Amino acid sequence: MQQQIIDLAIELIKRPSLSPDDQGCQALIGALLEAQGFRLEFMPFNHTLNLWATHGSGAPLTVFAGHTDVVPAGDEKQWRYPPFAAHIEGDMLYGRGAADMKGSLAAMLIAALEYVKNNPEHKGTVAFLITSDEEAAAKDGTAKVVDRLMARGEKIHYCVVGEPSASRRLGDVVKNGRRGSLTADLYIEGIQGHVAYPHLARNPIHNALPFLQELIAYQWDRGNEFFPPTGLQIANIHGGTGSNNVIPGELYIQFNLRYSTEIDDAEIKAKVAQMLQKHGLNYRITWNLSGKPFLTRPGKLLDAVSEALYHCLALKPQLETGGGTSDGRFIALTGAEVVELGPLNATIHKVDECVSCSDLGALGKVYRRILSNLLDA
Amino acid sequence: MQQQIIDLAIELIKRPSLSPDDQGCQALIGALLEAQGFRLEFMPFNHTLNLWATHGSGAPLTVFAGHTDVVPAGDEKQWRYPPFAAHIEGDMLYGRGAADMKGSLAAMLIAALEYVKNNPEHKGTVAFLITSDEEAAAKDGTAKVVDRLMARGEKIHYCVVGEPSASRRLGDVVKNGRRGSLTADLYIEGIQGHVAYPHLARNPIHNALPFLQELIAYQWDRGNEFFPPTGLQIANIHGGTGSNNVIPGELYIQFNLRYSTEIDDAEIKAKVAQMLQKHGLNYRITWNLSGKPFLTRPGKLLDAVSEALYHCLALKPQLETGGGTSDGRFIALTGAEVVELGPLNATIHKVDECVSCSDLGALGKVYRRILSNLLDA
Repeated sequence: MQQQIIDLAIELIKRPSLSPDDQGCQALIGALLEAQGFRLEFMPFNHTLNLWATHGSGAPLTVFAGHTDVVPAGDEKQWRYPPFAAHIEGDMLYGRGAADMKGSLAAMLIAALEYVKNNPEHKGTVAFLITSDEEAAAKDGTAKVVDRLMARGEKIHYCVVGEPSASRRLGDVVKNGRRGSLTADLYIEGIQGHVAYPHLARNPIHNALPFLQELIAYQWDRGNEFFPPTGLQIANIHGGTGSNNVIPGELYIQFNLRYSTEIDDAEIKAKVAQMLQKHGLNYRITWNLSGKPFLTRPGKLLDAVSEALYHCLALKPQLETGGGTSDGRFIALTGAEVVELGPLNATIHKVDECVSCSDLGALGKVYRRILSNLLDA
Repeated sequence: MQQQIIDLAIELIKRPSLSPDDQGCQALIGALLEAQGFRLEFMPFNHTLNLWATHGSGAPLTVFAGHTDVVPAGDEKQWRYPPFAAHIEGDMLYGRGAADMKGSLAAMLIAALEYVKNNPEHKGTVAFLITSDEEAAAKDGTAKVVDRLMARGEKIHYCVVGEPSASRRLGDVVKNGRRGSLTADLYIEGIQGHVAYPHLARNPIHNALPFLQELIAYQWDRGNEFFPPTGLQIANIHGGTGSNNVIPGELYIQFNLRYSTEIDDAEIKAKVAQMLQKHGLNYRITWNLSGKPFLTRPGKLLDAVSEALYHCLALKPQLETGGGTSDGRFIALTGAEVVELGPLNATIHKVDECVSCSDLGALGKVYRRILSNLLDA
């Protein structure tokens, strides 16, 4: 099984599928699924390709969810091996998308193909929901597929998202929820002028600093049993005309919050507005809520996952809700039980992204066991 | 005299001489000077034209310094009159360069031409140093002419720079020095990562904030009799990949200091390095010193200027060293006494730049009186 997974992962990594350009990944995947009796339904929206593939019928509907797109490789000269070469060194497979998430996508596919081959009359429906835009706007991907499925009354019961969840070793962490994600685009307005005449200008960079310090130091909440404390990161800041003798008229700041169920987006917005006003800043702000927090409580899916991890890897996973958002947030809206389980996330979005080949083999066995736990008997 | 000045100013304004494109201004000026017995020496460097013209011989060498180039007009539709039409409305002459500094250049020229015509055997040397790049890089202009003059042992004793120095009325301010200007390009290094995993990254924006607050709040000195306190402005700040879910790996900050004679550039650099180290930042910094501060203490030139202003305008000027740099910084390096005296600076570098025609006439008389004060008797 491991070799099949690696071979497929290599084929996928070699396609430089920067969001939302699928580069033929879904055609390749679709062909494999169709050969094993899956019914394919391609659902493109604008430039995003999506594949919905099902095997069997009726309840429960168990979905493997994943994405074919990757984030940019950045400066390719910084990579030990070319990012789309899918080079193997020892046990490690290198390449953009190796860990996020072409490796786990390959593992899910090989696991499910093998399961349905050996259990052609399995209970319910086994499905794949694959998109080519999870890393970028994510507007025309899983969200729209889920909308369509809900519109026609298809109820998802269980969903395993192949996002890289492991922290130190394979299987140590299962994500059973995700924090909310809220982004602000903030413009601090000043008055442009000459640096030699600051009394005739108002420097928005200078004026924003005390506010920014308060913003990053503020404790939004302490988290709870399932969620870590809410965190804020300034992702982008831009001010200046390019000249060294001009005080800029405006400063742009973009920050993102990953927030727990202890606070909601309205409270966050109100608090930021209060801070801005307290510091006497002239500003414009727009907010973008990419996902509210969600949580899968212990139940059938978490039982099946825990048993599979204990059986295959002899460990009990830690349940966590930290880290980034994933398309799990959209699938959770259907009422499905959703978990994220995939390889180590140590190198994702970085240079020299890589994944362990033996981990991918083991992950395939875990996915197959999860299906058995949910559908056998 | 006023009408001659206005006529010449109009001729100059009609030439859209954006730095360093002289557009024939110096040819026009050279012809006028040559007709009155000045010896011309053109000193082009790369794309910059420079004119050195002298009348008489020996000491003292009294220089009028100016520039023919102008800053861009910006959006011409925002101008009341086309920026290169040199339109007169009432007493005001409108156009890019009207105040900075084609008006005062014309006044200097007409004043000096009249003076040498009436005093062909004047004491010492009267000279013009005119460049076509003061507003932009200023690398191939006055700085290089001064280098050449110093290399051949020509000593400048007095220099009047025609920069627009007046604040509320003509003659109210004479600049007898300029602050130094020092710019830093600072890169704060962090570790790039995903906003959802801040413990795996190091956000250089967050880490730089306490340092930046200290930097802008620090009191470098209290200035002195001739200089306002040293000031610092952050002119540019850029960090971020453009994505809202990536913690950037680096933050760029450019700041500029206008500094007094109470501190020097080495002390400033050392203090900034100390602050950066205190805040534990990983950084790279490069410094660019565009001009050390200079000061012309009370002496023959300031006496001549003060008497002329009192005689022509019945006022005593304020001596100031604030505001931006000018080519005076290069001429002061020769050991010359240097002052800046020109029209009101309220509209320079703005739309609807303009100058008072009667002010230009009065300024011509002041310049001529300064020559008399220095060279007669």
